[in-house]
Amino acid sequence: VGPPVFTSDRLYDVTPPGVVMGLAWTPMGGATLYIETQITSGFKPRPKAGEDEVEFPASDDKKDEDGNSGRAGLIVTGQLGDVMKESSSLAYSYAKRFVAENFAKNHFFDNASLHLHVPAGATPKDGPSAGVTMVTSMVSLATDKEVDPDIAMTGEISLTGKVLPVGGIKEKIIAAKREGVKRIIMPEENRKDYDELLDFIRKDIDVYFAKTYQDVYNVAFSQSK
Amino acid sequence: VGPPVFTSDRLYDVTPPGVVMGLAWTPMGGATLYIETQITSGFKPRPKAGEDEVEFPASDDKKDEDGNSGRAGLIVTGQLGDVMKESSSLAYSYAKRFVAENFAKNHFFDNASLHLHVPAGATPKDGPSAGVTMVTSMVSLATDKEVDPDIAMTGEISLTGKVLPVGGIKEKIIAAKREGVKRIIMPEENRKDYDELLDFIRKDIDVYFAKTYQDVYNVAFSQSK
Amino acid sequence: VGPPVFTSDRLYDVTPPGVVMGLAWTPMGGATLYIETQITSGFKPRPKAGEDEVEFPASDDKKDEDGNSGRAGLIVTGQLGDVMKESSSLAYSYAKRFVAENFAKNHFFDNASLHLHVPAGATPKDGPSAGVTMVTSMVSLATDKEVDPDIAMTGEISLTGKVLPVGGIKEKIIAAKREGVKRIIMPEENRKDYDELLDFIRKDIDVYFAKTYQDVYNVAFSQSK
Repeated sequence: VGPPVFTSDRLYDVTPPGVVMGLAWTPMGGATLYIETQITSGFKPRPKAGEDEVEFPASDDKKDEDGNSGRAGLIVTGQLGDVMKESSSLAYSYAKRFVAENFAKNHFFDNASLHLHVPAGATPKDGPSAGVTMVTSMVSLATDKEVDPDIAMTGEISLTGKVLPVGGIKEKIIAAKREGVKRIIMPEENRKDYDELLDFIRKDIDVYFAKTYQDVYNVAFSQSK
Repeated sequence: VGPPVFTSDRLYDVTPPGVVMGLAWTPMGGATLYIETQITSGFKPRPKAGEDEVEFPASDDKKDEDGNSGRAGLIVTGQLGDVMKESSSLAYSYAKRFVAENFAKNHFFDNASLHLHVPAGATPKDGPSAGVTMVTSMVSLATDKEVDPDIAMTGEISLTGKVLPVGGIKEKIIAAKREGVKRIIMPEENRKDYDELLDFIRKDIDVYFAKTYQDVYNVAFSQSK
Repeated sequence: VGPPVFTSDRLYDVTPPGVVMGLAWTPMGGATLYIETQITSGFKPRPKAGEDEVEFPASDDKKDEDGNSGRAGLIVTGQLGDVMKESSSLAYSYAKRFVAENFAKNHFFDNASLHLHVPAGATPKDGPSAGVTMVTSMVSLATDKEVDPDIAMTGEISLTGKVLPVGGIKEKIIAAKREGVKRIIMPEENRKDYDELLDFIRKDIDVYFAKTYQDVYNVAFSQSK
């Protein structure tokens, strides 16, 4: 107890599918945090990674799954405030759409019961700026692809996949560099905030500006494609 | 962080089906905002746009859909207050009725699980004046038709499709013009408020007065019919 | 923005089935308001009006309707307070019973998913005095009959159909006359309040006193029977 502190300093050396590093703003400065999404039912044998497109066939189990645990859905934990809870709901809706539109054979979301958590579990968190990170976490899990290493991201997501601007760009960049992040994805609409930063803050880190989630996806998974 | 601000300034150059520009009144003046509605399950291949009437056949899947995600229903996000949440419920009921009465073959709402969001996700919003915008967003999605470009709208909706008057007409017109809107749809009962405005506010923008939702529909989709 | 005002001034010239004018008391005087009930699923082609008894056959669809939207039930909107919400629940229970007892072939309520709304959507409303109006709204929809024009009503309903007294009789009569109402239905137990009114208030409007809902029904639908 005392002021909330983000304790996510390099919790992961490499992030498995479903885990993505985000950037948060706190009253004490920027911080990195991880979004973790995992499947809690349905544990199908995973398709092999490395193939061009993962195939999650439409399940025959569907009609058998009457229990809550078998139902497609999302639960969230991590002391998320109202805005961040809504943001996770939004991310879930959009991730389903993104996968449906880009991976025709992937029916992952039809049967997957998902759990999204944001460590540390006792630290209250809020705000919409983890939207793109949450989407990426779910897309990563659904496609069984790891996000490229040393990437962090920030940005609000709209229901149609627009990436909306966020606050605290300077603090977030400083925090990302402190954690050894090499590339940041941020909203196109924050380019003006970035351009105003001093050179010593901007150096040693690559920044990618995203207008839509497709832009985020292209950077985040460029090495696993 | 600071006073809530509507940051929707031309988030969309053109609005896809399901997205409609509304007008809001805030303590700091008028603002444009977008209502986004998307389908979150069922992802049926969309019928081709441009046809006279989209055909969403009554689904055979219906009895198979045991999961929550497959159920017809509406979830809403965007930090909406109680009145605005009720307004979305009202819009949903009326949109179903409007489509059923006007598009006999369109069973879109029977199976669609919908998500309505109002960016920006962290800005609290309330009031009934987005009612017609919400209905239009849902009708647009159900019929797979885009709203004509450069249209914004405001108005409370009743359960039977009456368009009820709203506040802040002057501020809303100023905000719409600032965003490059060319046509506004507003309630007939606000005509007196409009008539009292100075000429310089009224010029350069066309205003359409609606008594019922049918009037709104006729203007909003005039080019896609 | 300013004190809440009932803005229902003749929203309807004629009221379709499911819409009934009620009378409310507010701290600023009496007001008319509309109760709107509409069906939100099942959209069966409506039986023709004008027949002696509308026939809503027991539906074969019933077993197919697994979605929430297909279930019989009632949702209410319009910023109703706790008492008014309970009143709508009471009205729903009684309306089902009234129709079952008086229209043997009418299975409307078995399958209808109903939505009751009270404009204006942002004006908080409470109290039990719209009970008979709510019942009439539902009975009107179930029987596909319009309420006679220029009628308004007020009265609390009991679960067995008793009509209980309400407050603000003087203010309600003044408001009704201001809106062009020609006939008012009120509780028998309010006859003494009415008798105490000055002649100029009582003139130009016919008042019907009801002990039970059957009395209300007989007046409200006298022309459509």
